[in-house]
Amino acid sequence: MAVLQLLKERILKDAKTFPGNILKVDSFLNHQIDVDFLCEIGKEFKKRFSGCTVTKILTIESSGIGIACVAAQFFKCPVLFAKKTKTKNISSDVYQTKVASYTHGTSYDVVVSKEFLTVGDSVLIIDDFLANGQALLGLIDLANQAGATVAGCGIVIEKSFQTGAELIKKTGIKLESLAKIKSLDDGVIFV
Amino acid sequence: MAVLQLLKERILKDAKTFPGNILKVDSFLNHQIDVDFLCEIGKEFKKRFSGCTVTKILTIESSGIGIACVAAQFFKCPVLFAKKTKTKNISSDVYQTKVASYTHGTSYDVVVSKEFLTVGDSVLIIDDFLANGQALLGLIDLANQAGATVAGCGIVIEKSFQTGAELIKKTGIKLESLAKIKSLDDGVIFV
Repeated sequence: MAVLQLLKERILKDAKTFPGNILKVDSFLNHQIDVDFLCEIGKEFKKRFSGCTVTKILTIESSGIGIACVAAQFFKCPVLFAKKTKTKNISSDVYQTKVASYTHGTSYDVVVSKEFLTVGDSVLIIDDFLANGQALLGLIDLANQAGATVAGCGIVIEKSFQTGAELIKKTGIKLESLAKIKSLDDGVIFV
Repeated sequence: MAVLQLLKERILKDAKTFPGNILKVDSFLNHQIDVDFLCEIGKEFKKRFSGCTVTKILTIESSGIGIACVAAQFFKCPVLFAKKTKTKNISSDVYQTKVASYTHGTSYDVVVSKEFLTVGDSVLIIDDFLANGQALLGLIDLANQAGATVAGCGIVIEKSFQTGAELIKKTGIKLESLAKIKSLDDGVIFV
């Protein structure tokens, strides 16, 4: 079965919804990880960004790491994952940005080492979810601070009824979401 | 070059040491991830645990996830990563254990959903580092709570001068560490 159809079916079968438009796919993406399935997702990202130069895949801990690592095998490039930090005194050898968390109702700082993100990089940003887009905008900000090019954003599941996709499109950056959730009305998923 | 020799050389070339016997390999394992190299590491784990039944690879967020996902492709099994949690009211549908953090001088709770770790599982535990062994003992505890079998523990870098390896060996569980750091005296690494 084609990966997109399979993804849709797995979301409908396995995803759990929680108050506040929260969707979890712990059975194959966010807790338990179906690595064979991630391979198919990685190939699909490679297809969607086939014309793009990608020197590095940029993601954010934790749920993005597995997806990024498996996808990177098809792009033949390393992964760089931005780290969430509680340290107040940010060191001068990192780029830092603030990300508002929709799920937790808080904000946190994320950092990447300047050493690993440079003006010569063309990064593909990969993440599991796109909701209000704050994590993605944070990663774009880190790439901009480094003077790196953003080749595009690859998302496994977009919640299209939230503002994130619009915000990313406004930046002019190519956005590819493999599944789009139209609504989560009363916990019922419409893909 | 053989993966073990390459690993040793990369540790000597790239690892950074910090006060308190802390070692970081941010250039290929803990922040930037060299996915091609992880593939070789994954194959080596497969070789070392070739006689073992592995139904699932168990790891802990964040640094273990990439290694586990790439290795899992050679074991043809899913990954389950234990989540660090700040929630005080642990839900009844998770197994929970406390892990003391050597690096941060604190302790934290880690959880896995009961749904994804069961009596039928034979888990290979994979992590980036083995120092004082608390994370690994926590993961073993989670497996024990589930009634799952622990097929073994696969570690990329063991700090042999700390107590972790001894503690794991005492449990009788097969432990395979790909690189062993003998000492970090005054920041000088002896592999």
